[in-house]
Amino acid sequence: MPRPDLLQRLDVQTAEREHARLHRRLRTIEHADGPWLESGSRRLLSFCSNDYLGLAQHPTLVAALTRAAGEQGVGSTSAHLICGHRAVHAQLEEALAAWTGRERALLFSTGYMANLGVLQALLARGDVCVQDKLDHACLLDGARLSGAELKRYPHADVAAAARQLAAHPEAAALLATDGVFSMDGDIAPLRALAQLCARERATLMVDDAHGLGVLGDDGAGSLSAAKLGQHEVPLLMGTLGKALGCSGAFVAGPAALIEGLIQFARPYIYTTAIPPALAAAALESVRLAQTETWRRDKLAALVARFRAGAAQLGLPLMDSASAIQPLLLRSADAALAAAQALEHRGLLVVAIRPPTVPVGQARLRITLSAAHEEAHVDALLDALADLAQGSRVAGHV
Amino acid sequence: MPRPDLLQRLDVQTAEREHARLHRRLRTIEHADGPWLESGSRRLLSFCSNDYLGLAQHPTLVAALTRAAGEQGVGSTSAHLICGHRAVHAQLEEALAAWTGRERALLFSTGYMANLGVLQALLARGDVCVQDKLDHACLLDGARLSGAELKRYPHADVAAAARQLAAHPEAAALLATDGVFSMDGDIAPLRALAQLCARERATLMVDDAHGLGVLGDDGAGSLSAAKLGQHEVPLLMGTLGKALGCSGAFVAGPAALIEGLIQFARPYIYTTAIPPALAAAALESVRLAQTETWRRDKLAALVARFRAGAAQLGLPLMDSASAIQPLLLRSADAALAAAQALEHRGLLVVAIRPPTVPVGQARLRITLSAAHEEAHVDALLDALADLAQGSRVAGHV
Ligand SMILES: Cc1ncc(COP(=O)(O)O)c(C=O)c1O
Ligand SMILES: Cc1ncc(COP(=O)(O)O)c(C=O)c1O
Repeated sequence: MPRPDLLQRLDVQTAEREHARLHRRLRTIEHADGPWLESGSRRLLSFCSNDYLGLAQHPTLVAALTRAAGEQGVGSTSAHLICGHRAVHAQLEEALAAWTGRERALLFSTGYMANLGVLQALLARGDVCVQDKLDHACLLDGARLSGAELKRYPHADVAAAARQLAAHPEAAALLATDGVFSMDGDIAPLRALAQLCARERATLMVDDAHGLGVLGDDGAGSLSAAKLGQHEVPLLMGTLGKALGCSGAFVAGPAALIEGLIQFARPYIYTTAIPPALAAAALESVRLAQTETWRRDKLAALVARFRAGAAQLGLPLMDSASAIQPLLLRSADAALAAAQALEHRGLLVVAIRPPTVPVGQARLRITLSAAHEEAHVDALLDALADLAQGSRVAGHV
Repeated sequence: MPRPDLLQRLDVQTAEREHARLHRRLRTIEHADGPWLESGSRRLLSFCSNDYLGLAQHPTLVAALTRAAGEQGVGSTSAHLICGHRAVHAQLEEALAAWTGRERALLFSTGYMANLGVLQALLARGDVCVQDKLDHACLLDGARLSGAELKRYPHADVAAAARQLAAHPEAAALLATDGVFSMDGDIAPLRALAQLCARERATLMVDDAHGLGVLGDDGAGSLSAAKLGQHEVPLLMGTLGKALGCSGAFVAGPAALIEGLIQFARPYIYTTAIPPALAAAALESVRLAQTETWRRDKLAALVARFRAGAAQLGLPLMDSASAIQPLLLRSADAALAAAQALEHRGLLVVAIRPPTVPVGQARLRITLSAAHEEAHVDALLDALADLAQGSRVAGHV
């Protein structure tokens, strides 16, 4: 048998995706103005960004970025451990640690790399990594990379997680969960998981990409809302590219953990530090996320308004208290058709299909933001009402 | 046996590193001004950045970053496939494809993620991934993540690579190599590897993080210098955070490959797109790297000056034609002591020790940049001469 060609094989896989109508297409956004996006020369009201607090275009962030770039240039020119660690990186780490109530924080270039870095540094062959089935892709990849045995429990099922830990009583164990699930919007059973981990001597890791900035009175995320400190949850991962409106990520926890990550986390050691100007913008964003509490209040009010309206329309709302408010349409075709119908009406909502979500669980992933107004939510509800009306005939939504 | 505690285990590993004097320490840079860094209130002349063309602080980059941030804000607010793909990302991809002579290019947040993404999308269990032993950490991690069998051949040993491929005649195969090796500075035997891959129907991937901008008449990197097109090397990874002075990375190659990565590369799909303002800066940087050819000429002249001077001093130069000019001191203690002695004289050079390099191969990793002047190189040579003088007594350098 001749050696198969890798590029040909990839082409075949792409064609299969296309055939199954699960092909992903890039849409170019020509201009962004808060929730208004221009694409294909059309102006669309977007409900698909992760800019939950409406900070991504905040003039204070832009001013900080501009000032820092004027003083320090663009690139950091090197990894943190060589000569890429600037004072503003250190300040941002301190601000993040203080906000999340942790001893120390460490910057990573992305949440993807932060999760890989933590799992790879802490886990090895022979260990067990227990994860929620709906955890983000990079938590799964991190576990794979670590060589630990990966056990996935049914979504939010603490008893199942307990059984998986109990089945490996002598293995070093880490339990990782999203704080807020990225495609569902619901919050993990954090207190129950923390109790389980304490009982089982397992280390608990929470990926709070979608909780940070949004949950907790201080915006410090799902752990703050659940009143869980560093002792209960030693590993907290947060991102700078969602509610904080920038890009990058961090891990926060005990000082010794952070020191260990500096020594052993390959995706920390062997990569370029984020631009100092970006760290300067994120530092302002952390301040605004803490002090401008009206953003969280406004977002919560918009979420409540959307949920009340959607419930009244009998839409298939999911159980979510976060900014992520998916409508579960089940079939991938139905989700795609709904997204297209909304786009016709000037609303941009993304259809999330397999393999991002399990087969039969395609959905519209609607996200709300403090950058939205009540009238925007009402426009979305009106369009969804018309859609539901139309499809009652067709038999879905 | 009770379950071991992961954090305690990490602490023990950190302590062992410290005990072996292989502990890594973060240095905070208070201010950067070209090759001059301020750290601990001292002004140091740096020979450790990857800003090979001196573009990281270029006013044109800063202006582009500032302008784009003013128009579009800071964060992209989402993944490329949701609503994070802005026109400037597309423009940058086009400019990178044109520069490197490839059909298309795709942006990733970091080189680390680009390498993971390519290997994970293309390779699966049952395939073989053949790599140079000195390939960058993230190429190794990508192979691990893919589940393919990883075979590492002795550095630059094409015959050994050929044997490894021949030993798996029916497996789909990818051969991955750094173009310029990050800790050695030498260039891979690219033409011989391309011939081998053509003969063996293996797919060749080149990580040109340290060649792009520096090598080739047009600065398009080690493949341009070796006159290897997309047909011979379908997978080219380049970074934006080294010679281009920004951060981020891209993969360039056939259009069908790029389409496949969009569908299947998890570190592309499941992560936040880089800030559009950063893409705008990188776009200017690509233009400058192409048009300001004097930067490459100046760098080459500084490299030649350094090598001539170092040879005259009998310093343990390595065989490198790139901007990376390591001095091989072998013992980790000697490398650390030399770096400390240089720092006393106001020169910042980083000691690279195991596990970043093999045991017994510790070195000073000296990097030169078009931001340096001849007098800077001479100051470094003077300091190294004194060091060598002193240590002839002590028995090393
Ligand atoms: C739960 C979760 N974790 C991690 C990430 C990755 O973060 P980043 O975009 O910074 O790579 C994301 C989204 O991208 C996410 O939704
Ligand atoms: C050869 C090589 N490949 C990839 C990378 C990773 O690139 P990035 O810093 O963009 O993650 C680096 C350095 O960081 C490198 O030296």
